[in-house]
Amino acid sequence: MANASPSAIVLLSGGMDSSTCLAIARKTGFRCHALSFRYGQRHAIELDAARAIAGAVGVAEHRVIDIDLGALGGSALTANIPVPKNRTVAEIGSGVPVTYVPARNTIFLGYALAWAEVIGAHDIYIGVNALDSSGYPDCRPSFIAAFQAAARLGTRLTDLTIRAPLLHLTKAEIIVTGQSHGVDFGLTTSCYDPDPAGRACGHCDACLLRLRAFAACGLVDPARYVTT
Amino acid sequence: MANASPSAIVLLSGGMDSSTCLAIARKTGFRCHALSFRYGQRHAIELDAARAIAGAVGVAEHRVIDIDLGALGGSALTANIPVPKNRTVAEIGSGVPVTYVPARNTIFLGYALAWAEVIGAHDIYIGVNALDSSGYPDCRPSFIAAFQAAARLGTRLTDLTIRAPLLHLTKAEIIVTGQSHGVDFGLTTSCYDPDPAGRACGHCDACLLRLRAFAACGLVDPARYVTT
Repeated sequence: MANASPSAIVLLSGGMDSSTCLAIARKTGFRCHALSFRYGQRHAIELDAARAIAGAVGVAEHRVIDIDLGALGGSALTANIPVPKNRTVAEIGSGVPVTYVPARNTIFLGYALAWAEVIGAHDIYIGVNALDSSGYPDCRPSFIAAFQAAARLGTRLTDLTIRAPLLHLTKAEIIVTGQSHGVDFGLTTSCYDPDPAGRACGHCDACLLRLRAFAACGLVDPARYVTT
Repeated sequence: MANASPSAIVLLSGGMDSSTCLAIARKTGFRCHALSFRYGQRHAIELDAARAIAGAVGVAEHRVIDIDLGALGGSALTANIPVPKNRTVAEIGSGVPVTYVPARNTIFLGYALAWAEVIGAHDIYIGVNALDSSGYPDCRPSFIAAFQAAARLGTRLTDLTIRAPLLHLTKAEIIVTGQSHGVDFGLTTSCYDPDPAGRACGHCDACLLRLRAFAACGLVDPARYVTT
């Protein structure tokens, strides 16, 4: 009766969504293998948050893989393009923003799939959500379903399941869910453009959506901000 | 009336298949952006072949991206597992061999997709072939079709086409096709386990399939072998 828990790969950025996702995977009974990426993002401080969350929630293993998405350019998160600030909710919701990183979730899921096949895991967790997704095409439910279909055909994992438990939740619902699963949101970071000390800017799309969600819950965001 | 050719991303390993694929993409009229990977493969010498082929066929650009698939383990091509030698054609055709690299084509196509989206290319070439594919699940036609569906949903490239012109050709047919497109197979390398001078072993699955195909065409393989 030793460790009989099935293993799952959990994509973990260190933000609220993936941290909540990890907590859900743990409570569901999975032995969690957390996977993070150093991909040339300007907010690499999120990897410290990912480590803290992995430790707090409890994982079997946490790997950080170096990948050079910046070499291909095309995003404000990896190239020398300014991060938009102080946009309205309507602006954030319209079109694909410059903070979109081309094919990022396809690449992240590709690595998760490789690791799943190596260790024999049949489940991959990803914290995408469609409702507050800032218009990223690779956060849509149809993409997640299509990637699962491709993954089952392209590996020996013919029953692989991509689990996206936050897919249809709002950011506010994610906060409630995370709290009920014991997530310490003070350990998480969401800002696209933090200062050198790791404090959130409070004005990028990610900060605005996060602050709005905490306010909707009647809560104060425990993250550290430059201007609060 | 300047350069009006559409761009295509071409996955280029430096072997016969991807080199033939590149030549086909060029003759089809595409401006080719060749993409290779240093992924911890024991046969990294293939990157020299890729550079030589890219120069000989003529590309707009050739990028080599460093990715650490070896960190995830699980393959004789990236880990300390012996490469099988002197297997029969029946043995090669049965099951998934240890030289299979988990989810490799998913990851390679993910990067190709990212680059395509950044430069606005609507076509990706990959030199997979199903008939002589050594049982790799990510070389199956159904996987290629499923990946294309996921790629269209996960990016802004809603008309993206994954072109796999060798999908239904035998290795011998690929040689004939490559020759008719002017490929110098002496520049290509297929061996999974070359010696330090880059000479092919002549006994791994890739060498055996290649030698058999040249023999079927009544040709001598111009590649350099340790034992010939």
